[in-house]
Amino acid sequence: MSADQKLSELGYVLPEPPAPGGNYVSAKIVGGLVFLSGVISIDKQGVMAGTVGHDRSIEEGYTAARQCALMQVAVLKQALGSLDRIKQIVSVNGYVNAVAGFPDSPKVINGASDLFVEVFGDSGRHVRAAIGVSALPRNAIVEIQMTVEI
Amino acid sequence: MSADQKLSELGYVLPEPPAPGGNYVSAKIVGGLVFLSGVISIDKQGVMAGTVGHDRSIEEGYTAARQCALMQVAVLKQALGSLDRIKQIVSVNGYVNAVAGFPDSPKVINGASDLFVEVFGDSGRHVRAAIGVSALPRNAIVEIQMTVEI
Amino acid sequence: MSADQKLSELGYVLPEPPAPGGNYVSAKIVGGLVFLSGVISIDKQGVMAGTVGHDRSIEEGYTAARQCALMQVAVLKQALGSLDRIKQIVSVNGYVNAVAGFPDSPKVINGASDLFVEVFGDSGRHVRAAIGVSALPRNAIVEIQMTVEI
Repeated sequence: MSADQKLSELGYVLPEPPAPGGNYVSAKIVGGLVFLSGVISIDKQGVMAGTVGHDRSIEEGYTAARQCALMQVAVLKQALGSLDRIKQIVSVNGYVNAVAGFPDSPKVINGASDLFVEVFGDSGRHVRAAIGVSALPRNAIVEIQMTVEI
Repeated sequence: MSADQKLSELGYVLPEPPAPGGNYVSAKIVGGLVFLSGVISIDKQGVMAGTVGHDRSIEEGYTAARQCALMQVAVLKQALGSLDRIKQIVSVNGYVNAVAGFPDSPKVINGASDLFVEVFGDSGRHVRAAIGVSALPRNAIVEIQMTVEI
Repeated sequence: MSADQKLSELGYVLPEPPAPGGNYVSAKIVGGLVFLSGVISIDKQGVMAGTVGHDRSIEEGYTAARQCALMQVAVLKQALGSLDRIKQIVSVNGYVNAVAGFPDSPKVINGASDLFVEVFGDSGRHVRAAIGVSALPRNAIVEIQMTVEI
């Protein structure tokens, strides 16, 4: 089953890719690799903002990470025309807006990893790093930056 | 117009590339990609230090990010001999030394993105992530890490 | 001398590579590059946890970074079969769990850089970024993410 079919089977609707707010681009293709800009957690209501361990739970962080992943899929679809061109997800860097000492950033970033495997199957498995940081753009809960092979 | 000509037209003078302070190097070429070490914000007076949102403004952060970018151009010139070998700027990771919850790291990192587009034109556009962190080497305001295609 | 011989000459025993705790993998090969997931500082007693500048010293951070590097060598050996396949270490991102304003993350990450050069010689030299962050998985002192050329 193609990733596009899988998306609709799962009931996911791709969001509108964000317009970069500066002199940069959302995606860049170099040889067989697609480099993507970091995207922050946004849903229909706007930026999913807050700090995990303070005013946001791990579960809310997980959902925010999944939204970031869905947004990156939308960016990939826009950049590549079709998701069928994706060979595998290579790397994911997940940054979690969290209180100092927060030990569970992996549980938050699982929201992105799980979505990639749901949509792309085994090709969705990637290497990753989960990092807790003190500040993200627009106070977003999560930011996801990634690389894909086509 | 070449990037070198553009630099002098803009009145930019490339700083002296930093000597790595450990068992690492400033640049590494692998295939068509050049990987660069992170560089921190330094001007003629030394390290541009401080925390955005505390003792540094967004504007000071912007200037610090531009200095980092200029330093990376100097590193590239040293590593490649000529800036004409650069096909495009691929990716930029910008880390901003900022107070917890600081929402405007993109406005700071624009200082680097704008410089790359000033100097390299459309080939200067890149993917990027802007992250707020609690500590950078030598208490620098900004650190920029990047990848370039030759 | 091969990296394997060098390791035993130095008296290093490779730890057991970690099992990823989610829908991701430890290593991914794309063309001539090996991308590795971030690994946190672990020794025989378990996670080396804490915050540099608060309850951990720079020296303890250095040791933690070396343990991360040793773990990545173990991951590489598992992924590649033999360390002889490694052409060079390309890039290292080192994240240090540190108090706000901590200026010495490079001194901590030197623990990883030094190990790579001890084991791989000049091919162990890499580009790197050292970043101080407010939270790492399981409250680890250090996390190391890297890329290698084969």
